[in-house]
Amino acid sequence: MKVGILTIGNELTSGKTQDTNSSFIARQLNVPGWQVAAMMSVGDDENAIRGGLNYIMGISDAVIVTGGLGPTADDITTVAIASTFSLKLYTNEDVLRHIQGLFEKHRLKWTPNNAKQAVFPEGAETICNPIGTAWGFSLKRNGIIVAVIPGVPAEVRRMLPEGVIPLFRREFTEEAQYVESRTIKLFGIAEAGVDQALADVDLAGLGVNIGFYPNFPENHVVLIARHASEAEAKKKLKKAEGYVKERLRDYIFAYDRETLESLVASLLTERKLTLAVAESCTGGLITDRLTDIPGSSAFLERGVVTYSNVSKTELLGVPEQVLHEFGAVSEQTAILMAEGVRKIGKTDLGLAVTGIAGPTGGTEEKPVGTVFIALTDGKKTICHRSFYRWDRRRIKMVSSQSALMMLKRYLTGEMRDD
Amino acid sequence: MKVGILTIGNELTSGKTQDTNSSFIARQLNVPGWQVAAMMSVGDDENAIRGGLNYIMGISDAVIVTGGLGPTADDITTVAIASTFSLKLYTNEDVLRHIQGLFEKHRLKWTPNNAKQAVFPEGAETICNPIGTAWGFSLKRNGIIVAVIPGVPAEVRRMLPEGVIPLFRREFTEEAQYVESRTIKLFGIAEAGVDQALADVDLAGLGVNIGFYPNFPENHVVLIARHASEAEAKKKLKKAEGYVKERLRDYIFAYDRETLESLVASLLTERKLTLAVAESCTGGLITDRLTDIPGSSAFLERGVVTYSNVSKTELLGVPEQVLHEFGAVSEQTAILMAEGVRKIGKTDLGLAVTGIAGPTGGTEEKPVGTVFIALTDGKKTICHRSFYRWDRRRIKMVSSQSALMMLKRYLTGEMRDD
Repeated sequence: MKVGILTIGNELTSGKTQDTNSSFIARQLNVPGWQVAAMMSVGDDENAIRGGLNYIMGISDAVIVTGGLGPTADDITTVAIASTFSLKLYTNEDVLRHIQGLFEKHRLKWTPNNAKQAVFPEGAETICNPIGTAWGFSLKRNGIIVAVIPGVPAEVRRMLPEGVIPLFRREFTEEAQYVESRTIKLFGIAEAGVDQALADVDLAGLGVNIGFYPNFPENHVVLIARHASEAEAKKKLKKAEGYVKERLRDYIFAYDRETLESLVASLLTERKLTLAVAESCTGGLITDRLTDIPGSSAFLERGVVTYSNVSKTELLGVPEQVLHEFGAVSEQTAILMAEGVRKIGKTDLGLAVTGIAGPTGGTEEKPVGTVFIALTDGKKTICHRSFYRWDRRRIKMVSSQSALMMLKRYLTGEMRDD
Repeated sequence: MKVGILTIGNELTSGKTQDTNSSFIARQLNVPGWQVAAMMSVGDDENAIRGGLNYIMGISDAVIVTGGLGPTADDITTVAIASTFSLKLYTNEDVLRHIQGLFEKHRLKWTPNNAKQAVFPEGAETICNPIGTAWGFSLKRNGIIVAVIPGVPAEVRRMLPEGVIPLFRREFTEEAQYVESRTIKLFGIAEAGVDQALADVDLAGLGVNIGFYPNFPENHVVLIARHASEAEAKKKLKKAEGYVKERLRDYIFAYDRETLESLVASLLTERKLTLAVAESCTGGLITDRLTDIPGSSAFLERGVVTYSNVSKTELLGVPEQVLHEFGAVSEQTAILMAEGVRKIGKTDLGLAVTGIAGPTGGTEEKPVGTVFIALTDGKKTICHRSFYRWDRRRIKMVSSQSALMMLKRYLTGEMRDD
C-alpha cells in the first residue's frame, strides 16, 4: 500500500518550523510495511492545499494530512478539503460538547472561534484527539482514504497510531506484511567503495532493499526485507546481511542503534577495564563522546586535553627533550602520551591523540591533517599515523572516530600489529 | 517569485533521515523575498521524481531539487530529470577531471562508478560543488529554472547561497530589492518568552520580518528588512534591532555568524589571557567547543576531564576530605576545581563544571540535572548552581553553554556577583 503525506502550515514553507511530523509518520508506516509515495508541505492556502491533495491522491492508496485544524483564521484545512471534494460543512454536536467540556475542565475562557473545531465536511468520520481540542476526520473518495489530523507533534504521536493506522488497517487488510530491517555501520570506506564492494550481490533478486546513508565520518547501510511470513522476512534479511558482512567485514563496527562509543563503553564495562585519555588535536571530543554514555564513570578515570607543551610534560610526563626533538605531533610523543596518561591515571588502558587540525601549523613533512593515535595496555603500545584532508572540525571528528576504532579493535581482539 | 523544493531520497520517505534541507532552503529564500510554493520529498524512484518534478514545475517559477547525485546505483536523479525533459546524457570532461583530481588529492582509490558524477543532461549548466564530488546543474524549461544540487546538508549550505541563489537572481532581475538581515542569538529564554517579550513591538508595521529558530540550547531571532533603497533597508533593520535589544538585552550573546565559542576565543586572544578548564559532567565538551576555533592553542593551556574522585585530587588538588564531606557535585568542589586547574595550569583563568548528567546518580538534595559552574581569576571566584530538566546529552550541552556564558560575561565585564 502506498501512503502520501501532506503537511500544511505557513510555518513549514517559511522554514520557521522544521517538519518533524512527516518523518515520524514515515517511520510508523514502515512497521506494517506500507510505503510512502511522497511527502509534501504547502502553506495555509486553499489553492495550494487543493492542488497538493489532488496530486498526492493521484499517486497513493491513502493520504495523511496534518495541520491547519486550529481555531484561528489562518487554519483553513477543513474548508479547503471540503471544497476539494465539493462537500458541505456541518457542526458535530458531540465534538462541540466535548471541546466545551475541556474548556470547563481546564477553566479556560470560551471564545466563539473555538466552535470552528467542531466543524467537519459532511460524511466525514471523526478521529478522536485524546490530548487536544482539534479532532481529526477521514473521508473516502474513489477508494482512497484521506485522514486529516492536527499538526501539533505531540498530537500526531498519539492520533497516528491510535486513530489513523487502525483505520488504514481496517480498510487495507489484504496487504499486511512483516518488515525486518538491519542497519550496518561502517567506517574507513567511502560510499562508492561500499557500492562497488556489493556490486556482485543481487539483493533485488533476493527481495531485499538496500539504502546508503552517509553520516560523517561513518557510512550506514540499511537492509530491508518484507514478506507475508515473519520467518521468511527474517531469513531473507539474514542472507542479505551475510553477503554484506562477507564483503565489508573490515569496515563494519556496529549495528542498528549501537554507536561506536556505546560499543566501546559496553566492552570496557563488561571486561572491567579502566581508561585514561590524553587528547591534543581532538580537544576533548573523545571523552565528550564516551561520557555521552550513561555509566561511563565506571571505566573513564580521567581525560586530559594537553594543548600546551608544558601540560604534556606536567600531566603526562612527556620529556621536554622529546617534544623538542621530535615535535608535539610525532609518533614518539603520541606513544609517551598514551603511556603517561595510563601510568599517572593508574588505569588498564591509555589512549592518546596528537595531530594538526589546522588551518595553520602544518609543515611539508607533517601537513595539516597529520594525526598520531596511540593505545597502550602497559605491556604493548601501538601507534598509527593517519592523514586527513578535511577542515578543522572534520579532522577532529574523524580522528576521534579512529581513536575509538583502535580501542574497539583492541577490546575485541581484532587489533593488528602494523 | 515562487520557488518549489523537491528533495529526493529513500532515506527521507522511509523516515530514516529528517529532511533538514527543505527548511534551510526556505529560510534562505526568505532573504531575497521569494516564496515557497510547495516542498515535496520522494524516494529514489524515476516515476516518483518525474511526477513530483512536473507537479512542482506547474506551480513554481523556479525549482530546487536536492539529493540522488551520488555515485551509487540508487542515485538516479540525473537520469530521472533527463528523462523528464527527454534529454540525452553526456560526460562533462572538465568535471570528470576535477573529480579525479579530488581523488588524487585525498589519496582515495578511484572506482569506475565515480565517473557517474560527471554525467549531466545535455544543455545543463553545471553548478560547482566546492566541498564534494557531486556537482549540481541547472536547466531552463518553459521559462522555469530547475536547479539540482546534492542532498548532503553541508553541501546544500554552500551550493545554495553560492550557486543557486545567484543563478536565480540573474534570471529574475525584476525583483531586485535590498535585503538586510540580522541574526540575534539568545540563551536562557524559551521561544515563547522571546515571543512574549516582543508582543508590543509592531515589526510588521515597520516592514521587518521576524523569524524564530530554536537551536538547542540557543534561540535565534532573525530580522529581515527589505527596501528598494539600501539605506532605507539598513535603517529599518537598525530600528527593529534596537527594539529587540531593548527588551532582551540580558539574553543576547552573539550576532550573525559569531558563536559563543568564537566570541570567547576572540576575547581571550585579544586580551592575551590564558585559560585552563576542569570538567566533570560535561566530559570534555567545553574544550571540544573551544578547540573548534582555529588558534585556540593561543589561550587554552589545558583541559582536564576529572571523572573520578582520585583525578580531582591528583590533577586539581581538591582535598579528599572536601569530596567526602560535600560531595564531588557541590559548590565547594566546583570552586576548588576552578582554583586548582588555574593554579596548576599557571593560567590567568580557571573554569570548572561538576554536575549530575544522569540518568542515575541523583539524590533528593541534588537531583539529576544539578550542575555547579565556577570561574576564577585568582583574585575572585564565582560559582553558580543550576538545575536542568533534560536528558544526559542536553544537560551536557546546556551546562557547557552556561559555563562559556559565565566566561563571556566575565570577559566583557557583565559578570554580576550573585
